[in-house]
Amino acid sequence: MSMSEHTNPLGDKPIRVALLGCGVVGSSVARMLVESADDLRARIGAPVELVGIAVRRVGKDRSDVPVDPALFTTDAEDLVTRADIVVEVVGGIDPARGLLLKAMESGASVVTANKALLAEDGPTLYAAADAAGVDLYYEAAVAGAIPILRPMRESLAGDDVTKVLGIVNGTTNFVLDKMDTTGAGFEETVAQAQALGYAEADPTADVEGFDAAAKAALLASLAFHTRVKGADVFREGISDVTAADIAAAKAMDHVVKLLAICERTTGQNGTSGVSVRVHPAMIARTHPLASVRDAYNAVFVEASAAGQLMFYGRGAGGDPTALAVLGDLVAVARHIVAGGRGPGESAYADLPILDVGDSVTRYHISLDVEDRPGVLAQVAQAFADTGVSIETVRQHIRTNSSSGEARANLVIVTHAATEAALAATVDALAASEVVAEVVSVMRVEGA
Amino acid sequence: MSMSEHTNPLGDKPIRVALLGCGVVGSSVARMLVESADDLRARIGAPVELVGIAVRRVGKDRSDVPVDPALFTTDAEDLVTRADIVVEVVGGIDPARGLLLKAMESGASVVTANKALLAEDGPTLYAAADAAGVDLYYEAAVAGAIPILRPMRESLAGDDVTKVLGIVNGTTNFVLDKMDTTGAGFEETVAQAQALGYAEADPTADVEGFDAAAKAALLASLAFHTRVKGADVFREGISDVTAADIAAAKAMDHVVKLLAICERTTGQNGTSGVSVRVHPAMIARTHPLASVRDAYNAVFVEASAAGQLMFYGRGAGGDPTALAVLGDLVAVARHIVAGGRGPGESAYADLPILDVGDSVTRYHISLDVEDRPGVLAQVAQAFADTGVSIETVRQHIRTNSSSGEARANLVIVTHAATEAALAATVDALAASEVVAEVVSVMRVEGA
Ligand SMILES: NC(=O)c1ccc[n+]([C@@H]2O[C@H](COP(=O)([O-])OP(=O)(O)OC[C@H]3O[C@@H](n4cnc5c(N)ncnc54)[C@H](OP(=O)(O)O)[C@@H]3O)[C@@H](O)[C@H]2O)c1
Ligand SMILES: NC(=O)c1ccc[n+]([C@@H]2O[C@H](COP(=O)([O-])OP(=O)(O)OC[C@H]3O[C@@H](n4cnc5c(N)ncnc54)[C@H](OP(=O)(O)O)[C@@H]3O)[C@@H](O)[C@H]2O)c1
Repeated sequence: MSMSEHTNPLGDKPIRVALLGCGVVGSSVARMLVESADDLRARIGAPVELVGIAVRRVGKDRSDVPVDPALFTTDAEDLVTRADIVVEVVGGIDPARGLLLKAMESGASVVTANKALLAEDGPTLYAAADAAGVDLYYEAAVAGAIPILRPMRESLAGDDVTKVLGIVNGTTNFVLDKMDTTGAGFEETVAQAQALGYAEADPTADVEGFDAAAKAALLASLAFHTRVKGADVFREGISDVTAADIAAAKAMDHVVKLLAICERTTGQNGTSGVSVRVHPAMIARTHPLASVRDAYNAVFVEASAAGQLMFYGRGAGGDPTALAVLGDLVAVARHIVAGGRGPGESAYADLPILDVGDSVTRYHISLDVEDRPGVLAQVAQAFADTGVSIETVRQHIRTNSSSGEARANLVIVTHAATEAALAATVDALAASEVVAEVVSVMRVEGA
Repeated sequence: MSMSEHTNPLGDKPIRVALLGCGVVGSSVARMLVESADDLRARIGAPVELVGIAVRRVGKDRSDVPVDPALFTTDAEDLVTRADIVVEVVGGIDPARGLLLKAMESGASVVTANKALLAEDGPTLYAAADAAGVDLYYEAAVAGAIPILRPMRESLAGDDVTKVLGIVNGTTNFVLDKMDTTGAGFEETVAQAQALGYAEADPTADVEGFDAAAKAALLASLAFHTRVKGADVFREGISDVTAADIAAAKAMDHVVKLLAICERTTGQNGTSGVSVRVHPAMIARTHPLASVRDAYNAVFVEASAAGQLMFYGRGAGGDPTALAVLGDLVAVARHIVAGGRGPGESAYADLPILDVGDSVTRYHISLDVEDRPGVLAQVAQAFADTGVSIETVRQHIRTNSSSGEARANLVIVTHAATEAALAATVDALAASEVVAEVVSVMRVEGA
């Protein structure tokens, strides 16, 4: 390809890129910057020059990263002032926050994969970008290689998004998918995921839904033009999901997924707002999200004009994530070369974030009850009293092994009801003399 | 939102938009331009002014389109010279081609949904855009509301795409899905699709794969940086798909889909090139594309760094398509306001387009054979002689109703083989004395 085709107002002046972090993602970014130098130059209209890589341990062997070893530095504070674009793949809140603020103050645009920081303090970063007239891009922060933020910020910007349902954490999807295919329990499957490198030694951030909650906050912010922080997200992890829950889902041709749900909805008191939550839920096997296997991610979007959309792909891994970083880098670099800026924060709608009690979904409830006439009527009454209507009931007789007493298992699926109403139902059931045990309650999504 | 936040080098000078066509898509575009005027102004940094709408019948009642009736004109030739952006939703090759060339010569950027024109003569349009220094965008031409071309042109531009598998025609997907769920035949289901408005009175362009072939050409061109025309695409429609084929797919837990397949591959003589084809094929129900129901579209992409990606959504309809048009309009208008240009044609790889005989896939073959010892051995020999290796064989005994003679049905699934080798196998089978009939041959994709 001839370079002369490209107009370049800066002549051959290179775009200076500083890389913060050289771990799983950073080492892929560094390698791609070197290997795709010609391609990047053609797409951007100017060459890219890697001016430094900040790391913690400058003495570590990094011979797999094909760059001049002199580029490695521990002085990130200095490095960010010497760049046109700062790529941050360090992770965590501090020092990443301070470094990015300093970078923008010094006139650099920022590309980051740091969902934790954005979900904690995005508005501060956006404000700094606005003040400096630079770009803040973070495609890699949600669902790795899947281009999802750009369509939300650009293609869907003129539409009204009503709902986002995402499988945004690969570790938990891997665990739930394996539980589904093998019938194994949670602990055992997590151990297997750790052995295969799909779960970290301390899997808490993934398993308890913290990572998914941060991503849900970023998706909700873009979808609803409203500031949503990670801490605003109702969160329930998958550590209480049992093999029995998975089997119960299977029995009604559903699968259990950890879903990030962002919904435009109306609360009980009539307030129009957004509901953002992360929790395990059953979805029908016919739903497009049900076919998301292994550690894959997918984001399902419902919008007024566009209808249903789904984006599917790898949510993590060095190369897929680095590719998303590079896509952002090209967009930002093109702005530097050709002028202009990408979309900034869009928080004009400023909708209230509703309490989880206001969120509406269907429920799958498994109850152990005495096996005698009139029990079903009493159970049904408990639902009626709390205003939750029943869609289906299935009953299985079984003999309780310890006492020899006949017990029945009731599986009830409700119509859509609020979390608050459902909680009242569950309380009433637990207090009922005919109910031996509320075995499990799980939400059913994606109707 | 305060407008003062937006820098606008043109001051309040509006972006003049000419709309060519006001049918299914055009009327949605016109309505959205009016209804979203404030939003568009905020995103673009300048107001959008609709300067005219070219139609065939200026006297037609268009009271559903909320614009000044004086805007309608039959003089498209004049209209295109009075705009900064020309949106073309007329369709067909001529006069659309001449109008778009004239528009670009006059300095206007172009947004079009016209897959037929792009697949026929894309390079001429790209050359005109380059010569005039304007943009040529056509997100709506493939898979309606699904943002697929932008990720291919931008997010995946630095990656090596190896394969694209697309369900890009809603009519045929609707027909095949209904055949799968109801067990009905092709003719009957097409009639039903016509009654429901999912198929046109003359369904040829959809059913025989012409529409999908045009889209396959556009996808392959972007994926492989190589010029591919609609006429280069091997094409086979769904009119020969029988209820028996669908049932056979079901029996092995597969579904039949009309796939657009774009593949980076190596021909028999060692030539590295691209294979682009549209034909019905079986895919496993566990494949993400299998869950694409009704008239939905999806595009599945495999790339070296990104891994597998899938984009799913509505492929047609006025509003979804208009939304894609508006997304392009915003991108192009931002370039006009802020300077810069989007990516132009990328055809540098200039790979040869391989003959369909070189393309490699698995096959499902149904044979009626005599039911006597030694038949399977003779059939297996026909495969071995032509170099096609067998993965599985299933045999069903059945009695041929007309002659009362016992017949067996053999269902053979092969390992991957070239179309050329398979054709030789089928010839050998047809000529074999033990084979009464080659009942069907269908490709099996997505392994
Ligand atoms: N891994 C994925 O698949 C993935 C996917 C999407 C998003 N992300 C996000 O990408 C970011 C990076 O993830 P990762 O998996 O690449 O992390 P990682 O492998 O732990 O790498 C972190 C890098 O940052 C460096 N670092 C740590 N503290 C530093 C400091 N104070 N100053 C300078 N450098 C410092 C480390 O230096 P040393 O090399 O000297 O230790 C290391 O090179 C995180 O925000 C993560 O959430 C990751
Ligand atoms: N429909 C979809 O869902 C869809 C989806 C994706 C892409 N597309 C593409 O979008 C384009 C438009 O499709 P459509 O369904 O909107 O078509 P349509 O409903 O048939 O509308 C065509 C419009 O073009 C006008 N027109 C026809 N010939 C003309 C001429 N010579 N000069 C000026 N105006 C002329 C017609 O005028 P009158 O109103 O006076 O007849 C009509 O308003 C096509 O390229 C199609 O492939 C459509």
